[in-house]
Amino acid sequence: MTVTPVGRRERKKLATRQALVSATLRLVAERGFDRVTVEDISEAADVAPRTFFNYFASKEDAVVSRRRIEPAGVRALVLARPAAEGPLAAVCAVLRELTLPAAEYREELLLRQQVIERHPALVARQLRAYAEFERAMVDAMAERLGHSAGQVGEGGLRLRVLVAAVTAAARSAASHWMHQAGRVPLDTLLDEAFACLTDLNRERTVD
Amino acid sequence: MTVTPVGRRERKKLATRQALVSATLRLVAERGFDRVTVEDISEAADVAPRTFFNYFASKEDAVVSRRRIEPAGVRALVLARPAAEGPLAAVCAVLRELTLPAAEYREELLLRQQVIERHPALVARQLRAYAEFERAMVDAMAERLGHSAGQVGEGGLRLRVLVAAVTAAARSAASHWMHQAGRVPLDTLLDEAFACLTDLNRERTVD
Repeated sequence: MTVTPVGRRERKKLATRQALVSATLRLVAERGFDRVTVEDISEAADVAPRTFFNYFASKEDAVVSRRRIEPAGVRALVLARPAAEGPLAAVCAVLRELTLPAAEYREELLLRQQVIERHPALVARQLRAYAEFERAMVDAMAERLGHSAGQVGEGGLRLRVLVAAVTAAARSAASHWMHQAGRVPLDTLLDEAFACLTDLNRERTVD
Repeated sequence: MTVTPVGRRERKKLATRQALVSATLRLVAERGFDRVTVEDISEAADVAPRTFFNYFASKEDAVVSRRRIEPAGVRALVLARPAAEGPLAAVCAVLRELTLPAAEYREELLLRQQVIERHPALVARQLRAYAEFERAMVDAMAERLGHSAGQVGEGGLRLRVLVAAVTAAARSAASHWMHQAGRVPLDTLLDEAFACLTDLNRERTVD
């Protein structure tokens, strides 16, 4: 996973990936998920079917995994945070970095969410992807904090709660943004959601 | 939904519901979801198939909705919290009340989660139930705080983040407890998870 692509090769790969995702969503919205083949998608994106499979394992994958966020990428982002940053700030910063690119694809994300919600198999796959992401974040944060593997298993509840809460806040902000027609910018809503977490125990946190 | 059942009639209804859920999970685990009918379940629980449908709309429903938590029930629990309690404490208290009964059904919950994870349709249904629950909590909290409907829509992000974070914490605690063979009691883990939310912005929240 590359959050800020540098080389031309990397840029071209991202463009191809994006073209495949757009074609998948457009065709699925037009015809229904079961009536679209990988061949249709490849043709619409003007690549060979073999190329499709360089990017995605299946058309399900092309709908759900717009970006590939590998555990190694999550780890790199977490370990790149300044040492002085507290755990909450570090997790929020990584989630912010990973969520912000969505700002350029609002219509596409709405379409994607509609497609996913109509297909239980896609819902299950998205949920699995979320769970894998959270596990990768917990592992990376444990490494950052110098926990041993045993500690993660035994005392790891606090870390799981931290990651689950920040992820839930980021998802709330993204969903709010998508359904508000993007009137308030995504980064503003993310900041508001994370600020709410920081202030969670203020006496009247909701005004 | 009744959290503390009082009358005999209510107790009998809960017992029948529980018998139907247990029979469903046992049969599904033995034969596979698609090979179990409502007739099989009713027979195993010693009730008429018509009785099954007084409790559940389908066998999917019997797997996912062990307890029925209606929006009206959520609202009643939220509005019953002491007025002096802050929003975070109130949401945590309600989640605690709703999660604690699980302590008596650990094996059954593990089995249920295994069944759900093998069937994408059940995963999707569980996720929908979670989303409906969170919406009911947000609405009830908005009412408790005297928000108008417009405020919930517009400024409601903070409330959604609060509810999403507490729900995520409760689910982390429950999952931790299920997979730890219940060695640490569920209520201890819930308290630990909620304390973590309260301390989220402590400099080194994870020790």
